Amino acid sequence: MRIAVLGVGLIGGSIGLAAQRRLEAQVVGYDPAPETVERALGLGVLTRGERSVAAAVAGADIVFCAAPVGALPALVSAALETSGEDTVVSDVGSTKRELADRLRSSPAAGRFIGGHPIAGAETAGVENARAELFEGARWYLTPDERAGGLHYDRLQRVVADLGARPQAIDAELHDRLMATVSHLPHVIANVMVAQAETALSEDSERLPEVGRSFRDTTRIAGANPAIWTDIFKSNSEAVAAEIDRAVERLRQAAELIRAGDAEAVDAWQRRALDARRRLLDAGTGGGSLLELRVAVDNKPGVVAEIALALGRAGVNIEDMALSPAADMRTGAISLWVAGDADVDRAIGVLRELGHAASAVGSGE
Amino acid sequence: MRIAVLGVGLIGGSIGLAAQRRLEAQVVGYDPAPETVERALGLGVLTRGERSVAAAVAGADIVFCAAPVGALPALVSAALETSGEDTVVSDVGSTKRELADRLRSSPAAGRFIGGHPIAGAETAGVENARAELFEGARWYLTPDERAGGLHYDRLQRVVADLGARPQAIDAELHDRLMATVSHLPHVIANVMVAQAETALSEDSERLPEVGRSFRDTTRIAGANPAIWTDIFKSNSEAVAAEIDRAVERLRQAAELIRAGDAEAVDAWQRRALDARRRLLDAGTGGGSLLELRVAVDNKPGVVAEIALALGRAGVNIEDMALSPAADMRTGAISLWVAGDADVDRAIGVLRELGHAASAVGSGE
Repeated sequence: MRIAVLGVGLIGGSIGLAAQRRLEAQVVGYDPAPETVERALGLGVLTRGERSVAAAVAGADIVFCAAPVGALPALVSAALETSGEDTVVSDVGSTKRELADRLRSSPAAGRFIGGHPIAGAETAGVENARAELFEGARWYLTPDERAGGLHYDRLQRVVADLGARPQAIDAELHDRLMATVSHLPHVIANVMVAQAETALSEDSERLPEVGRSFRDTTRIAGANPAIWTDIFKSNSEAVAAEIDRAVERLRQAAELIRAGDAEAVDAWQRRALDARRRLLDAGTGGGSLLELRVAVDNKPGVVAEIALALGRAGVNIEDMALSPAADMRTGAISLWVAGDADVDRAIGVLRELGHAASAVGSGE
Repeated sequence: MRIAVLGVGLIGGSIGLAAQRRLEAQVVGYDPAPETVERALGLGVLTRGERSVAAAVAGADIVFCAAPVGALPALVSAALETSGEDTVVSDVGSTKRELADRLRSSPAAGRFIGGHPIAGAETAGVENARAELFEGARWYLTPDERAGGLHYDRLQRVVADLGARPQAIDAELHDRLMATVSHLPHVIANVMVAQAETALSEDSERLPEVGRSFRDTTRIAGANPAIWTDIFKSNSEAVAAEIDRAVERLRQAAELIRAGDAEAVDAWQRRALDARRRLLDAGTGGGSLLELRVAVDNKPGVVAEIALALGRAGVNIEDMALSPAADMRTGAISLWVAGDADVDRAIGVLRELGHAASAVGSGE
């Protein structure tokens, strides 16, 4: 098996490592920056480096194009033009429809099948590449009506062999789902920080302390402009449509709140709690994700003590958020744990440590 | 000094503890649930318990009304009616204008000064009360034009003695600021989970895994309905006005994204990043909050190892977010650390542990 990786960053590099270790594949790499190929070779990410797309794709069974979304049309076209008739060409971009449209007129489009692994959003660079990056991760594949069955089969088997869970999905539906669960949250975070800054500078000489709710909802504001400008551009229709829907819902929320019907507001609040729980449950393998709150001293070491004790008891922390009080000395820790058994065990461990821990339920 | 606390939950109980320890005050408590008073006495939160508002406020220098926002008008009125002419009555509610309006016609309104400590949002119940809850916390006070100067002076001195940082602010401005940095984020989180659930159930048989961006932005969706219904109701005008502004900004964002001008989108993304940093910087005492990203194995113990090592090095973690990869075995940890010295120290410690750690800058 020979695999070509065009663009050797976090994703391309991790494909290289996983393909060598798990598939015993030969991995040939190309990157527009030659020094990146050198670094990748030094890290053992590639079997061989090449200076051109044509040289890298020669004889490859599968080519993965792992460049930023804006660079993909040209890169994928070059890969299709220079690779052999039995080579499957795929990509790992965060949006899928625009690229598919651009390739529609290519005579070799039947050999292209788009892809998008849901992994690695948090870091970048080949230095962070690791063979386990795709383990258990959803890897969307977007074959269109011209995609060859054997090509699709080969691609999805390799994706599974890399450790991921391949799933075929229509390119347009993929982009719509991503607009909902990923692109819209980024837009909203941007809007919220801009709005807060304007409101606060108009209203007050000094900014008030912003609390946890603001920090959490805006954590992704202004995320990596180099990547996100491309994503918004290539999925503009779906993202704008999602914004339109959010506008409509916010209007309804304003109406609800202006009307001042306490029962209706309460029901709305409870529906939101339930909806979030269902959405997160769908994303965890084993059991519901439950939030535990622990009041603690925020001194160095307390997070360690808790995490260590939970680790010893075999409880895995799926997510964690520290909320320091204003004095930065006391505060609360929220821990998310999956499955009732782990939750019970975690509460027991925390109580033994002398911390008041409680599961956050719908009534709290 | 005698202080009365009406409503003995987390806030009322913490006032009781702090007033006894720091002011050597006598603290007399009342709660509509007599068993709560019993529990508070058992915890040493109160010097004495009483069965009625009148008995609790008799002879008090200051009365703190610490009930949910919806119960405050009646409680504060009762306190004003039954307390002596030299008693200052205050409250700790999250919204201030509506209560002030309701009391305007009271003959004793000159003795009432509203208050709102920014503390304790993460937990509830007298069991979690602690004397240090207000240490360093902003405590807004909203005297109106009728408030007596001596009364205000006494209240703000006691608030400072409890460890907090009192700041006078107009009740209406207070509510508008809270609408911006706290109430609007809650509304938006609710809207986003509702929208995601609808979109996903229309579009797909199975929900896609939701990523970190969605989890972060919706963490507060459906927060404590018993408290939030009151807040939305009592601050409905300001919250609805903030929603209107968000709607306008989202419309502009949709336009920007539909227009597809990459440079403009990039500039928008960078402005959001800068704005968020300025907003968060304003909320930390010492230096900018910087985010460090660390790629790690998500096995039990790894958070402990990192937190413990940082604690040993004297680095305080202001905030933390774990982003498990889909396999729940690897992932990234984001750590927020204040001040350049701590950041450098943290990076050194993390590298010694063998983790690739990098500060997240504007270009990343």
